[in-house]
Amino acid sequence: MGSAILLLSCPDRVGVVAEVATYIAGVGGNIAHAEQHLSDSDDRFFQRLEIDLEAVAGGLAGFASGFEEVARRLDAEWSLYRSTDRAGLGILVSRQAHCLYDILGRWRIGDLPGEVRVVLSNHPDHRDVARAFGVDFHHLPVTPDTKPQQETRMLEILAGCGVELVVLARYMQILTPTFVDAFPDRIINIHHSMLPAFKGGRPYHQAHERGVKVIGATAHYASADLDDGPIIHQDVTRVSHRDAVSDLVRRGRELENNVLAHAVRAHLEHRVVVTGRRTIVFG
Amino acid sequence: MGSAILLLSCPDRVGVVAEVATYIAGVGGNIAHAEQHLSDSDDRFFQRLEIDLEAVAGGLAGFASGFEEVARRLDAEWSLYRSTDRAGLGILVSRQAHCLYDILGRWRIGDLPGEVRVVLSNHPDHRDVARAFGVDFHHLPVTPDTKPQQETRMLEILAGCGVELVVLARYMQILTPTFVDAFPDRIINIHHSMLPAFKGGRPYHQAHERGVKVIGATAHYASADLDDGPIIHQDVTRVSHRDAVSDLVRRGRELENNVLAHAVRAHLEHRVVVTGRRTIVFG
Amino acid sequence: MGSAILLLSCPDRVGVVAEVATYIAGVGGNIAHAEQHLSDSDDRFFQRLEIDLEAVAGGLAGFASGFEEVARRLDAEWSLYRSTDRAGLGILVSRQAHCLYDILGRWRIGDLPGEVRVVLSNHPDHRDVARAFGVDFHHLPVTPDTKPQQETRMLEILAGCGVELVVLARYMQILTPTFVDAFPDRIINIHHSMLPAFKGGRPYHQAHERGVKVIGATAHYASADLDDGPIIHQDVTRVSHRDAVSDLVRRGRELENNVLAHAVRAHLEHRVVVTGRRTIVFG
Amino acid sequence: MGSAILLLSCPDRVGVVAEVATYIAGVGGNIAHAEQHLSDSDDRFFQRLEIDLEAVAGGLAGFASGFEEVARRLDAEWSLYRSTDRAGLGILVSRQAHCLYDILGRWRIGDLPGEVRVVLSNHPDHRDVARAFGVDFHHLPVTPDTKPQQETRMLEILAGCGVELVVLARYMQILTPTFVDAFPDRIINIHHSMLPAFKGGRPYHQAHERGVKVIGATAHYASADLDDGPIIHQDVTRVSHRDAVSDLVRRGRELENNVLAHAVRAHLEHRVVVTGRRTIVFG
Repeated sequence: MGSAILLLSCPDRVGVVAEVATYIAGVGGNIAHAEQHLSDSDDRFFQRLEIDLEAVAGGLAGFASGFEEVARRLDAEWSLYRSTDRAGLGILVSRQAHCLYDILGRWRIGDLPGEVRVVLSNHPDHRDVARAFGVDFHHLPVTPDTKPQQETRMLEILAGCGVELVVLARYMQILTPTFVDAFPDRIINIHHSMLPAFKGGRPYHQAHERGVKVIGATAHYASADLDDGPIIHQDVTRVSHRDAVSDLVRRGRELENNVLAHAVRAHLEHRVVVTGRRTIVFG
Repeated sequence: MGSAILLLSCPDRVGVVAEVATYIAGVGGNIAHAEQHLSDSDDRFFQRLEIDLEAVAGGLAGFASGFEEVARRLDAEWSLYRSTDRAGLGILVSRQAHCLYDILGRWRIGDLPGEVRVVLSNHPDHRDVARAFGVDFHHLPVTPDTKPQQETRMLEILAGCGVELVVLARYMQILTPTFVDAFPDRIINIHHSMLPAFKGGRPYHQAHERGVKVIGATAHYASADLDDGPIIHQDVTRVSHRDAVSDLVRRGRELENNVLAHAVRAHLEHRVVVTGRRTIVFG
Repeated sequence: MGSAILLLSCPDRVGVVAEVATYIAGVGGNIAHAEQHLSDSDDRFFQRLEIDLEAVAGGLAGFASGFEEVARRLDAEWSLYRSTDRAGLGILVSRQAHCLYDILGRWRIGDLPGEVRVVLSNHPDHRDVARAFGVDFHHLPVTPDTKPQQETRMLEILAGCGVELVVLARYMQILTPTFVDAFPDRIINIHHSMLPAFKGGRPYHQAHERGVKVIGATAHYASADLDDGPIIHQDVTRVSHRDAVSDLVRRGRELENNVLAHAVRAHLEHRVVVTGRRTIVFG
Repeated sequence: MGSAILLLSCPDRVGVVAEVATYIAGVGGNIAHAEQHLSDSDDRFFQRLEIDLEAVAGGLAGFASGFEEVARRLDAEWSLYRSTDRAGLGILVSRQAHCLYDILGRWRIGDLPGEVRVVLSNHPDHRDVARAFGVDFHHLPVTPDTKPQQETRMLEILAGCGVELVVLARYMQILTPTFVDAFPDRIINIHHSMLPAFKGGRPYHQAHERGVKVIGATAHYASADLDDGPIIHQDVTRVSHRDAVSDLVRRGRELENNVLAHAVRAHLEHRVVVTGRRTIVFG
């Protein structure tokens, strides 16, 4: 039934592509798209395949059970997704609403292949809009004292509605390592600057003072060191001396929307693989 | 009190800048920003000034009444706006919601210096979201027979809530000349293609068949010939053979949002002047 | 020895990837990179592989002779290139020198994986620079009467120095079908505009009159209808009312250089496949 | 007579524009273009004017002598340039030739409004090409011991041929403060990275290790701290995991060419003003 996406990585050696492709053809699968990458620094092979499963006996489950042996021979890590599956999304947001509105809008018109399940916020402001888009909203105020309890509560809610990907849509609270570890490579953050330049706070002020001619935004997976996780996507826009800090902030918002949405989509389409401090983002 | 924007055009001759600036200084105004353009093809001078009126006796009205004589001497067309004024916006939309959501979101977070007053649609779908954003919604279905009456009704509603700028947010009905003439250079349309290439219907299909490597979107003022009005803004994104028509359509939506919002903002900031078939968009 | 690039296209069916990969692994080749595309419109499969041949008996020739049978079974068109081979380039140029200088410079510093063999021009102006870069130069003036003879002479020179790719670096003479047919999909032209907009002459004048906010350039294979061949690459740059036609022309030159160089490089790296009126350009 | 460019900066107060414009009109000059900027951080006013001097008695000199009194009243710094003047350029280059070739090519076809007078290099390699473009070449090898003498020699040569702007076209020797001070805000350097990210050596290696998705180049005025001078222009290009360091380096070269040429042109057109650590680049 339908088609599947296979993500695979293993030590490079002669015949990997043949072995995988031969298995697929053997069970009657057809490779609709394929892309691969050989990482020179660690001699590791990465592959993403879109496979038509129409003619495969047992469908996805049948395919997977037979593939286990192939993967063992190749010493491969792999995962398999049904193309039509829609991962559950949870959005964390504070006061600034632009990324929240943007994701809700894109999702509602069908442009994000996931399912927005819940919006969590340390402010009550966005309840009405979330609900107009048909999404549950929880207000979870955070103080230094209540942070651990509230994070526990957040993890419960996210688990309770089957969230697989957490999107930090300008969420201004620093997450504890406990929270981050609960979603390894499954929390996407938007940094309102071109990393690694202007790390930390008030990057648009820094950019203005330095007189840069280009500003950027960076979407990356959250890691213990918040601004240092693997970069998924970046983009820039041209600025000039005529732009006050407030203009940079406003123009940054559009950039943040587009970059975050691009990264979320790439993740949902199973096109992102993390390797060390970097990502491979298949086209 | 506060500041004003003066848009001016007149036949070019020695001393125009001096005459205008001398008047401004004479009444105690300070020029915060100024930009001008000399159109070689018709020897016409265009200027946009942001003027601090703090010290001007009589404020905006006082400034304007004195300026009349200057304008007469220069044979100038001119208009004067309070910087803090927020023009009323009316949005016309059909089924596709991306531009509607995008404008509502930007407006709500304060990124558009106007006031969205009303959403009119020939479909009922967008009522809930419009209202969650605090905007009136009218469902005005259109058939070939009812178009004239419905347009009359639309004009009444737009007038009734003080709309000064009409935004066609993927409104799929062709407007009659009567409607277009009611808002001269005050209807902004988004064309889902890079004009003048791929005019008319299904531009993404045309682009795909031709194998272009870049797609674009164009925001322009509506004119009698719908796709031929003065262009306000354009932008593009890179595409490849991997993009199916549906990918082009989806990627086009993001482009359409950004290009339309850019054009609407430029208009609301009084930075666009139409001259002949072209625009001057001050920076 | 070294590595090879295999370009392949055939009707799509289950097992194509497996069959090709199994052959490669069987002869001891290792697939360093691979990219494939399934054209939905005609159910045709396209693939580009970079193969390490170190361990293949008989090297490239051995690989090729064994592959013939695989290709026959798949009903495939294919070609095989040694990665280190450098195709011979011939440049045709008229008075405007920017593309000529740009290609010579890029080639001399090692940025183009080809070998510039000869420059042919209907003007004598560029002899000194060509020679300083170590390239032969022939002045072949063209009149309506002499065009057939001169084209014959050009074809002789190009053949004589082993030219495989002809670059029209702003060559202002229209080539006859005879000449174009001598280099099928091996003549790259740069069109100083975003095709299909502003076809034909003086595109920057047309763009200026229409008040467009973006200008572009298009590199494409030459075909009988000169501006209608398959597009290889396009790019754009933002312009405004401040740009006179002469500014558009100047800014277009930079665009033309970059777009033409990009297309020539893609061709030389065997990343371009023509299918119908379109190209597939592997990444 | 032709036209002139006036660059002016002074403390902001009511009437500056009027005073300048009134003087210009009074002597019969016509303002063809004007752009101004008010720097909020230090309340300073900056203006660039293109003035038609056809009807001005005494031409440029007449204009200047009368303007002195206006400038004194405004407490202004100012400079005045004939539009047709072509500043002398000196290019410093080491082994890597791409920026050298690019500037020579652009200059020769008339795309840079300056006059390349001399090429100085610590390597002998580029003599032939420089001469084919009609430019003097001096080979000045540098060792730690000979650097002071060679810099003295370089300053003599540059002075001897009337060089007003020094372009560091990938010149890999660090200049002493003595040299830098001899050309205040008149040495343009190209930094092969997006400042302030990846300062210092091997920025493309750093970018690759960090897995960034965008690389950039920065043209700036040289200052004592080499990578910290005022930024004139920046641009970026998109990269991916498929780009090896050598690809980043190659793609960086095209970026460096375009960014450096853009900055040199802006300087030569008198569009750049340095204020503190930043620049104003008029459009």
